[in-house]
Amino acid sequence: MSGKIKIGIIGATGYTGAELLRLLLDHPQADLKYLTTTSAAGQDISEIYPFLRPRFSQKLAGYELSAAQKLDVVFICLPHGKSMDIAPELVNAGVKVIDLGADFRFRDLAVYEKTYQKHTAPEMNAQAVYGLPEYNRAQIQKAKLIANPGCYVTAATLALKPIIENLSFVEGSIIIDAKSGVSGAGRALRQDTHFLEVYTNFSAYKLGVHRHQPEIEQNLGGAPVVFSPHLLPVNRGILATIYVKLGKKTDIDNILSILQKQYQNEPFVRVVKNPPALKDVVGSNYCLISPTVVSTPFNDQTQLILVSALDNLVKGASGQAVQNMNIMFGLPETTGLERVALNP
Amino acid sequence: MSGKIKIGIIGATGYTGAELLRLLLDHPQADLKYLTTTSAAGQDISEIYPFLRPRFSQKLAGYELSAAQKLDVVFICLPHGKSMDIAPELVNAGVKVIDLGADFRFRDLAVYEKTYQKHTAPEMNAQAVYGLPEYNRAQIQKAKLIANPGCYVTAATLALKPIIENLSFVEGSIIIDAKSGVSGAGRALRQDTHFLEVYTNFSAYKLGVHRHQPEIEQNLGGAPVVFSPHLLPVNRGILATIYVKLGKKTDIDNILSILQKQYQNEPFVRVVKNPPALKDVVGSNYCLISPTVVSTPFNDQTQLILVSALDNLVKGASGQAVQNMNIMFGLPETTGLERVALNP
Amino acid sequence: MSGKIKIGIIGATGYTGAELLRLLLDHPQADLKYLTTTSAAGQDISEIYPFLRPRFSQKLAGYELSAAQKLDVVFICLPHGKSMDIAPELVNAGVKVIDLGADFRFRDLAVYEKTYQKHTAPEMNAQAVYGLPEYNRAQIQKAKLIANPGCYVTAATLALKPIIENLSFVEGSIIIDAKSGVSGAGRALRQDTHFLEVYTNFSAYKLGVHRHQPEIEQNLGGAPVVFSPHLLPVNRGILATIYVKLGKKTDIDNILSILQKQYQNEPFVRVVKNPPALKDVVGSNYCLISPTVVSTPFNDQTQLILVSALDNLVKGASGQAVQNMNIMFGLPETTGLERVALNP
Amino acid sequence: MSGKIKIGIIGATGYTGAELLRLLLDHPQADLKYLTTTSAAGQDISEIYPFLRPRFSQKLAGYELSAAQKLDVVFICLPHGKSMDIAPELVNAGVKVIDLGADFRFRDLAVYEKTYQKHTAPEMNAQAVYGLPEYNRAQIQKAKLIANPGCYVTAATLALKPIIENLSFVEGSIIIDAKSGVSGAGRALRQDTHFLEVYTNFSAYKLGVHRHQPEIEQNLGGAPVVFSPHLLPVNRGILATIYVKLGKKTDIDNILSILQKQYQNEPFVRVVKNPPALKDVVGSNYCLISPTVVSTPFNDQTQLILVSALDNLVKGASGQAVQNMNIMFGLPETTGLERVALNP
Repeated sequence: MSGKIKIGIIGATGYTGAELLRLLLDHPQADLKYLTTTSAAGQDISEIYPFLRPRFSQKLAGYELSAAQKLDVVFICLPHGKSMDIAPELVNAGVKVIDLGADFRFRDLAVYEKTYQKHTAPEMNAQAVYGLPEYNRAQIQKAKLIANPGCYVTAATLALKPIIENLSFVEGSIIIDAKSGVSGAGRALRQDTHFLEVYTNFSAYKLGVHRHQPEIEQNLGGAPVVFSPHLLPVNRGILATIYVKLGKKTDIDNILSILQKQYQNEPFVRVVKNPPALKDVVGSNYCLISPTVVSTPFNDQTQLILVSALDNLVKGASGQAVQNMNIMFGLPETTGLERVALNP
Repeated sequence: MSGKIKIGIIGATGYTGAELLRLLLDHPQADLKYLTTTSAAGQDISEIYPFLRPRFSQKLAGYELSAAQKLDVVFICLPHGKSMDIAPELVNAGVKVIDLGADFRFRDLAVYEKTYQKHTAPEMNAQAVYGLPEYNRAQIQKAKLIANPGCYVTAATLALKPIIENLSFVEGSIIIDAKSGVSGAGRALRQDTHFLEVYTNFSAYKLGVHRHQPEIEQNLGGAPVVFSPHLLPVNRGILATIYVKLGKKTDIDNILSILQKQYQNEPFVRVVKNPPALKDVVGSNYCLISPTVVSTPFNDQTQLILVSALDNLVKGASGQAVQNMNIMFGLPETTGLERVALNP
Repeated sequence: MSGKIKIGIIGATGYTGAELLRLLLDHPQADLKYLTTTSAAGQDISEIYPFLRPRFSQKLAGYELSAAQKLDVVFICLPHGKSMDIAPELVNAGVKVIDLGADFRFRDLAVYEKTYQKHTAPEMNAQAVYGLPEYNRAQIQKAKLIANPGCYVTAATLALKPIIENLSFVEGSIIIDAKSGVSGAGRALRQDTHFLEVYTNFSAYKLGVHRHQPEIEQNLGGAPVVFSPHLLPVNRGILATIYVKLGKKTDIDNILSILQKQYQNEPFVRVVKNPPALKDVVGSNYCLISPTVVSTPFNDQTQLILVSALDNLVKGASGQAVQNMNIMFGLPETTGLERVALNP
Repeated sequence: MSGKIKIGIIGATGYTGAELLRLLLDHPQADLKYLTTTSAAGQDISEIYPFLRPRFSQKLAGYELSAAQKLDVVFICLPHGKSMDIAPELVNAGVKVIDLGADFRFRDLAVYEKTYQKHTAPEMNAQAVYGLPEYNRAQIQKAKLIANPGCYVTAATLALKPIIENLSFVEGSIIIDAKSGVSGAGRALRQDTHFLEVYTNFSAYKLGVHRHQPEIEQNLGGAPVVFSPHLLPVNRGILATIYVKLGKKTDIDNILSILQKQYQNEPFVRVVKNPPALKDVVGSNYCLISPTVVSTPFNDQTQLILVSALDNLVKGASGQAVQNMNIMFGLPETTGLERVALNP
């Protein structure tokens, strides 16, 4: 294996873990060495995910530092609050860590603690780099610990950040009406992800109180956000319809040029004229963003509508994590990530 | 037969026609006399819709005034622009008309003509009553011609009208982020309703330029609206998430009491504490409305979020049409309409 | 109240319980008096099933004989093995019992015990009537205890029984390739009914070892059956494709006339020429059956294919249970059950 | 470009054309030179399939031999009956042809003409090689014209051929109860692929008269087959449940060893113990096959049930076509085809 990257996945049986496997099987530099579980030690991952079986089979183990410290990089796919326990010892052992959970995403620990729970590794938090390559590429290259952004957050931030930073006449709160497929809710058994609760259904949840709202606000420099998540009856994908009130009229070409200038060299962000659909991105690492400007008829108010779409398990989680790994290890950023969406 | 209502459906092979049949088969006063078609004359409706076969079989005919004028009431389920041609002669022949299309929905013909096309029956338009029973019950009782509201419009109007009329500090444009099942797009063949375009997909369309936007604004007395329709990968149902900016803080109980006061005696509108899901209403004539008040953290702006859900083919079309028929014929308003949603 | 039937549902929070409520709300003689639960006592059923809320609200209680014995009829919607514990005391207290589980479905207790578990109420089993109205109507009228048939079993038996009994040249094993929506698996949390395990998926399970196979064989007088259930990614409905090898050539008209003769006066069985689709029946109490005769090209073997479709929660469970109640109480058999399928 | 394979796709706007593009974008030797259309000349393929846009953009042209003859290989993705018109001139011009239609699949032209239509290129048909690599690899290497097998046919043949050829006591007709996702029906507009005809639905069609039945029988050396296709409410995938009556008892291990011996060195066929699910293969080029042996209880008849699953657009069409291309050009057979299924 010599030059390959020795990789571990902590919590490999969840959906982000399985998605990392799907992606890394096609990554020429990946050497999958170590898959851990808290519940299924001794089982083979291909028993839990038969779709992997034609190409991959590996026993799951319980997490042990002695095993993990031989790796080059570890992806942590644990529930929020669990990474704090192990990321420090891994980083201290010289293993690069990419955490797909929320524990190291907040610069301001008070916001983390208000949103999640007590933080037990504040010094480590200070070293963490927020893994949004489009904005933090240079820091990611040198990082020891990556806090991989949330799925809703990536969709919203990529659409909004250039607008907020380049348009001086944004007014009032930004409304993010976001719709997500069910895989964002994870594989654990819950009544609200039973097939019969979701199929043919659609609903809003946690209006104004979802944990991704403060993370979005952090990324937007504190711009006020009203965040409304909804559950789509599909497996994958996030589509966010975002409303930005403009203080004066502007041209759609102005908006397009702001977005295009920001992302023209980005491998995984595309600015498009027509609003993207979920199936344009599902299975891929691309984020598609499209702006529309609407003038309400009676009072000349102007509304910018941004539609942003990505696959919550790819650009919203495991794909972005691999993108971060590529940057950290000096590989071309698109390695293993170039496939297009599965369609139809 | 004697006392029953002799009913015709003009354009019975579309989804709103089939839905009228589903509902009227359980209506004790309905006598289905006459089903017309422009494309399938001579066929039996149960060949086109086998789900009807166990209880109903009837030959389809081409429309003729001589046949239609013997009826008590006619439901017109034709594409927009076609009712203008036949509603006048039916009304003049003494037949009550309930039009499920848009031709007679606008008080201001200039708005109709800008939104749809040239209006060819302006005098008849002046006689039409807008068939939203919760607001026009007295006029509906005496009407000869009902303009049955649009599906998105009913969901938005029932949620917003009491707020607009009772809350003095609504500010700026109202944002209606609405999501509809595919049956709203009709049964005609189009690439965008091919199974493979919709399944596992989700998308926004006609942002800010949908034809229901001016109809909503009419119902709200001209309040400015940004209307964003989306296509859900399900068969039925509309869920609208509506954002109303408030000029000062208010209590959720204040909002709830406005809505409850408005609808406490209404048979088909329910104000509920938790945001409704699509499956709470699909198959039924109920509209569920739930308010949430959100304060954005940094600048004390206050946002009212209303979630409104109904079945686009029932309360959004054929069920509301039957409700109007019941009112016009002096029957209990709920006759034939009381079933709950099909769930799971 | 007076003349109405006082009804209890034991285990009201499962899908068959909820479906009984949906149907009985439209039953003019039903007086829903008593809903029990093992897990949610004190909650209102409309909190668990918000779709009921517009019309129905009732507190759930734990089961007590003292309360149940005041009822006219009790529907038992408990997991298999639980009805044996309470049906005897209810019957002895003079309450009619309709059991939707398997405990009293087998004439031969040895088959029950091999298929399920030890039977603890064999005397009561001897009194039970198998609740398939199309074959046992007279006995149902006088029954104190009804064993309501299984969902797969009803679909297979209604299609096959007339063929087996009237065609002398059926050969070899009958193959029943059956496909069911997820509601047949119940509301309890299981990995295999998580939305993401089912959506866009399809699979066979328990090939040749499903518990409905011996029940089908009992109904067919011991004819050998190969039963292959599959899980469809839909909420409701069973469609069974049944293969019967014929020892000599026969005409499709012969098969049609056997089926039509059997079912011409049945309110809920329809023999149709074209194979039915799931959506022709979902939401309704109808079972549609269609035969096709195929000659294989090279050796003149003749194969009869029967397609049988019903809604597993209606004709396959709760609708059939209400049909049985109607017969037991001398009501028209179709009372509360005539609605057609929900379509589209 | 030098050493790359210059590729054309005739009929690139259908689903098999789009799937070829998806696969070939990840094929290191593919140089996509020429995409033709009969209806959309001048449009860019990424306008029709926005999912391609992040990586691929190319103008569609009308087919012209002068352009096509510069290519190394052409995939023909036209409706049945159209390849006969152009395959001969392409082969004669020295272009390798892989036809995804049925025109060259039958050794016996009488069967083709009975099943489809008059054949206008019988000499070319005599040169065609049936493109099932697991059985015709050597011939494919030297072929000028490949007839790529049908989707149902691949699933059935891979499961059955080793059994038919190695088990002496197969009796009577083989029953193939097959279920396919909607993409098998193509992208053209038809009422039966409207979203609302398929969603939440399931149905059998063309029982015993589907055009794939004679192709399966050809592959099985004339064994009699009863073929029953069904339409699944999903986008992709075929799962066939196959019933083989055995004349005497046999052990499951015997069956497993026949299958494993046949496929142990095959890169894209896997013999598995538990019946595969659709999602184990969707998006991948793998075919999974699992046998079960069932003894019916009363008469000791023995039934072999084979479950075979593949993605109709990959191993059932475009993936198999790329596999054939790899063989024809001396590349490793798995080039560009190794990705696993998309799951969840």
